[in-house]
Amino acid sequence: MGYTEVDQKAINTIRLLAPWRLQVDATFKSNSGHPGAPMGMAPIAHVLWDKFMRFNPKNPHWLNRDRFVLSNGHGCMLQYALLHLFGYELSIDDLKAFRTVDSITPGHPEAHDTPGIEVTTGPLGQGICNAVGLAMAQAHTAATFNKPGFTLSDNYTYCFLGDGCLMEGVSGEASSLAGHLQLGNLICIYDDNHISIDGDTNVAFTEDVAKRYEAYGWHVEVVDNGDHDLEAMEAAIKKCQAVKDKPSIIKLRTTIGFGSLQEGTHGVHGSPLKADDIKQLKQKFGFNPEESFVVPKEVSELYGRHSSEGAAHEEEWNKLFAKYAESYPKEAADLQRRLKGELPEGWEKHLPVYSPSDAAIASRKLSETVLSKIEGVLPELLGGSADLTGSNLTRWKEAVDFQPKATGLGDYSGRYVRYGVREHGMGAIMNGLAAYGTIIPYGGTFLNFVSYAAGAVRLSALSRVRLIWVATHDSIGLGEDGPTHQPIETLAHFRALPNCMVWRPADGNETSAAYYVALTSKQTPSIVALSRQNLPQLEGSIIEKAIKGGYVLQEVEGAQITLVSTGSEVSIAVEAAKVLLEKHNVKARIVSIPCFEVFDAQSKEYRLSVLPDGVPSLSIEVMSTMGWERYTHEQFGLNRFGASGAYKDVYKKFEFTPEGITKRALLTIDFWKDVPNVRSPINRAFQQLI
Amino acid sequence: MGYTEVDQKAINTIRLLAPWRLQVDATFKSNSGHPGAPMGMAPIAHVLWDKFMRFNPKNPHWLNRDRFVLSNGHGCMLQYALLHLFGYELSIDDLKAFRTVDSITPGHPEAHDTPGIEVTTGPLGQGICNAVGLAMAQAHTAATFNKPGFTLSDNYTYCFLGDGCLMEGVSGEASSLAGHLQLGNLICIYDDNHISIDGDTNVAFTEDVAKRYEAYGWHVEVVDNGDHDLEAMEAAIKKCQAVKDKPSIIKLRTTIGFGSLQEGTHGVHGSPLKADDIKQLKQKFGFNPEESFVVPKEVSELYGRHSSEGAAHEEEWNKLFAKYAESYPKEAADLQRRLKGELPEGWEKHLPVYSPSDAAIASRKLSETVLSKIEGVLPELLGGSADLTGSNLTRWKEAVDFQPKATGLGDYSGRYVRYGVREHGMGAIMNGLAAYGTIIPYGGTFLNFVSYAAGAVRLSALSRVRLIWVATHDSIGLGEDGPTHQPIETLAHFRALPNCMVWRPADGNETSAAYYVALTSKQTPSIVALSRQNLPQLEGSIIEKAIKGGYVLQEVEGAQITLVSTGSEVSIAVEAAKVLLEKHNVKARIVSIPCFEVFDAQSKEYRLSVLPDGVPSLSIEVMSTMGWERYTHEQFGLNRFGASGAYKDVYKKFEFTPEGITKRALLTIDFWKDVPNVRSPINRAFQQLI
Repeated sequence: MGYTEVDQKAINTIRLLAPWRLQVDATFKSNSGHPGAPMGMAPIAHVLWDKFMRFNPKNPHWLNRDRFVLSNGHGCMLQYALLHLFGYELSIDDLKAFRTVDSITPGHPEAHDTPGIEVTTGPLGQGICNAVGLAMAQAHTAATFNKPGFTLSDNYTYCFLGDGCLMEGVSGEASSLAGHLQLGNLICIYDDNHISIDGDTNVAFTEDVAKRYEAYGWHVEVVDNGDHDLEAMEAAIKKCQAVKDKPSIIKLRTTIGFGSLQEGTHGVHGSPLKADDIKQLKQKFGFNPEESFVVPKEVSELYGRHSSEGAAHEEEWNKLFAKYAESYPKEAADLQRRLKGELPEGWEKHLPVYSPSDAAIASRKLSETVLSKIEGVLPELLGGSADLTGSNLTRWKEAVDFQPKATGLGDYSGRYVRYGVREHGMGAIMNGLAAYGTIIPYGGTFLNFVSYAAGAVRLSALSRVRLIWVATHDSIGLGEDGPTHQPIETLAHFRALPNCMVWRPADGNETSAAYYVALTSKQTPSIVALSRQNLPQLEGSIIEKAIKGGYVLQEVEGAQITLVSTGSEVSIAVEAAKVLLEKHNVKARIVSIPCFEVFDAQSKEYRLSVLPDGVPSLSIEVMSTMGWERYTHEQFGLNRFGASGAYKDVYKKFEFTPEGITKRALLTIDFWKDVPNVRSPINRAFQQLI
Repeated sequence: MGYTEVDQKAINTIRLLAPWRLQVDATFKSNSGHPGAPMGMAPIAHVLWDKFMRFNPKNPHWLNRDRFVLSNGHGCMLQYALLHLFGYELSIDDLKAFRTVDSITPGHPEAHDTPGIEVTTGPLGQGICNAVGLAMAQAHTAATFNKPGFTLSDNYTYCFLGDGCLMEGVSGEASSLAGHLQLGNLICIYDDNHISIDGDTNVAFTEDVAKRYEAYGWHVEVVDNGDHDLEAMEAAIKKCQAVKDKPSIIKLRTTIGFGSLQEGTHGVHGSPLKADDIKQLKQKFGFNPEESFVVPKEVSELYGRHSSEGAAHEEEWNKLFAKYAESYPKEAADLQRRLKGELPEGWEKHLPVYSPSDAAIASRKLSETVLSKIEGVLPELLGGSADLTGSNLTRWKEAVDFQPKATGLGDYSGRYVRYGVREHGMGAIMNGLAAYGTIIPYGGTFLNFVSYAAGAVRLSALSRVRLIWVATHDSIGLGEDGPTHQPIETLAHFRALPNCMVWRPADGNETSAAYYVALTSKQTPSIVALSRQNLPQLEGSIIEKAIKGGYVLQEVEGAQITLVSTGSEVSIAVEAAKVLLEKHNVKARIVSIPCFEVFDAQSKEYRLSVLPDGVPSLSIEVMSTMGWERYTHEQFGLNRFGASGAYKDVYKKFEFTPEGITKRALLTIDFWKDVPNVRSPINRAFQQLI
């Protein structure tokens, strides 16, 4: 309480640091941006950051900092301005470089390059889900590591969001779950400015948001004057902090583009302000209209204290942690290890190893075995399923559910999350869980429904987080559920996504390999596609080979063809090779490529040893052939929708049998017989940009 | 009112026709299915279908039938049983063939093959959105065609849905919009059985659903005893029908798997019943435990009357329509034409045609011109945008908004929909709009955010509906918004989806071609990817050629390379060809492939004329190269995320310039020079299954 002129000056400084000012200076070219939200939300940003947020700008990775998420990421100039003003490593020059190539101030906030950006936002609805994940991670970290007298973790997660975030269904999914989980450490601020790109929100969005969030089990505060009433904003945040068993949302009525000649209209949402508008704005706010990027001295001083205060906060925490390490050395070491993103030495020895004499097992079941064997040695694993636990086999036997104690169903130290039928929400929450720093998240659903979460998966890849999708029922092999559930395009989709590993293991050793690489790749998410049906343990499959993403499963001297496959089709290809030899006297090599992304990262020499010149090749995979032309000369796949029936009948219908493969292998050999020394597709005229 | 023993018998007959009975007869093999929902919802199904639904089972295409959508599509045996009992062309043998290959009773309902199935459901959350689309279509059809004394359209849309549908965010998107749109013709019935696959819904879903739907502006009814209280169910539906300005939802408390030994547990959700359970069930319901697939005579009689009543309903309507045709011949002819799915003769003459001297224009703007030119001649076009109207340019100048009159913003005859920031909801709603029979829907968003709607797009393709995604800002060419908004994997994703046309036109004529094929393809959805930046009108682009999906834009005698491209990169390839000739004395042909799916459907001879043997080829497209190996020997693309900056700077950074292409063209020629008569990738050893 007790706001003065300095606070107002600070707010107006934030408003004026937003991007449209770049226009007035001819040396800066960013003639685009979204000024409306930064101008409208400057007051609440000031109150929150100056009065509540706990952070050390000099160490944006300090564990117990409060997390700030800008779910309406198009307003990122607000966040960049705050980071600059509050002492983060983000200079005035960085602000000036807004929206230019190779700057750390891109058009939407990206977590990996900009200090102080927790998660990558902009695609609407994602940020608030990330915030739910961050809040879940805090609750779990506190429940796991805090001890009497040692509150290592008690940070809040604050999230700004706009109308667009609330219209997106993904936010509803995560919000419903957050209410169920009673996340009192999550405080969201809804910029209720009545404007979106199409104009007044009354053209499409007339629901009662406060009532909806009450229905989700949230605490709701309303502040009517978000332009001026700083005291009311402060009081509302305090009330939210006092509610310990519910997430909170503050419905804050603001004027978009406050101060602009176009304030309160969509004209100020997604387009820069005009020169005369900027001029009057500076005058109105008491700034020199001829100057740009000015931070008044009193504002620098006001905000400057956060650098020392933040450093003191962390220092205090470091002392506490040092004492903690004396009393709880094991826990302290575990926490430190997790924060570095490193796995315990020797953890990989727990991965199961199979030999060909072992029984045929569905790879979803093999995945369950991996999880059961490693969960003890990797306490940072925290997983769940989008209401398909019994199908995805994502829960180890002794797992405790991550639930508020009041439900009687578990507690926050639990490591198994019941996500409900909310794939997209799960994906976006996992991005938040991974961003917190103490957790490696995984989540299960059918492979086909990872597509529901495409928006979140793409942000996992872009923001370089380590997480795992346990994607079972990975093909027409799921059988009776039929075409609505049988993926055709899904692997091609995610294989085309940069920095995303798509694994489709063929047996137990390959499943272990998939988990090995997924867990040791600190900056890459993985989708592990797993079968519903049983798969035999293959002769020639070895973890050390499979972790290369592609390898020779069975070599043969004088091969006339290479059969290349993944997952459940590899064993059928092996059978086909037998038919080829026995019935047609044709020698076939077998190659398994469980992961394109990882295979592509191997040396050209190695890749050519797997797919050599001189031998025509045929790929076999029961879904879209798209992408296989990169590795093989001919492709056997399914470029149509599947069918509902027992899986063996479906495979037979589409000829994914030893005979169906044999027929096509012979056609392939015949087709390429006239070409001398067939060139392997691994050979390329030039390297791709990466 | 006045339910008797016959009603109870009918309900139990429905319950016993559900799939688990197949188990008792060794000749039928479907050992899978979801018995729980059919058993639990049999009473409400009986009340709704016997007392309320208006339909003619002998003509499932009659316009003014009530629409029934099973959003919890895994319970489809309920729907199949109803279709059989109520006289549709679905026999006992079809029921017996449940979940077997090539049956019309697949594991989830598919609209295109099964009479009486309106939309394809199963992926949770989709059906209720389809229902919103069907209800919007009815409101629009009534507002467009009804005249005083001629109520041609007044049908209801009824939708069953379960907990899973309500947890999925997509249903929230469509429900919020439906409330805003005041769709009084939509009545949903929520099977509140407290069970999902993970067990009791209290593990993840504890929100107050009724309150949430009130917040959306819906009318909510609650029926506590959905197992027995038929009168209450009937009364609730009547009350919903009486509410004309709100969609309704009935929260119906039921017991999943009613009657089973496992009733009320998730054991009965997704697994067939055991033999002893089926036996006791038959006994409990008064059926002979030794018999299967029995429909008691009194039940046949009760339901049999709907065939004659339905025929009479339609006959009456046909008479009304005949009179209507006399008074309103133009409207009647228009309606009949639409129902056949045919476009008016000569409509295509309205498509704009360009010559190379015309100005450079962004293809999103070219798309706007197409819409403006054809909207008058194609009144069935009903479109909108997910809150990006000014960016997608989806609204023609004189368009009226589709809004309830009470808002003062339009009326139901309006053809422009304000979808809000709800891409997935929009996609699923469009599937419903298209299914109604009188509308061709289109919807705009950024190409990158079509991915949010992947679940709906895949069902558009599977259910074979005609609709168009106006997908603007289609590449890194969108510039400043940066990597969060720049598609990389998106085209590969949807190109890999069967029965989905992905168009990426290079100029005005190709944009007209894209719309031509999209609108004349009755059974295929289209995604039209459009640029933010201006594109020149190309020498050699002709609508008649472009509608083949791929064609030679510029031929040259003695070509040393074929440059193959799409969209905004075609004109850069043309510039590169000039550089190649002028600086390197290299002759390059130019090929444009605006649509893979359509090009693939051309004769091999034609495709080889476009991509002939003997000439190495290089593809150029500013996103994932995945899939291009199918057409070209080498690929220049972007297998990484983009960058935020002015679009020309971004193109330059990644070398998508005439020089960057020239460099790679020379490398391509050099790399292939030793291979005699280079084989075109069009040549294949065998045909793909389609």
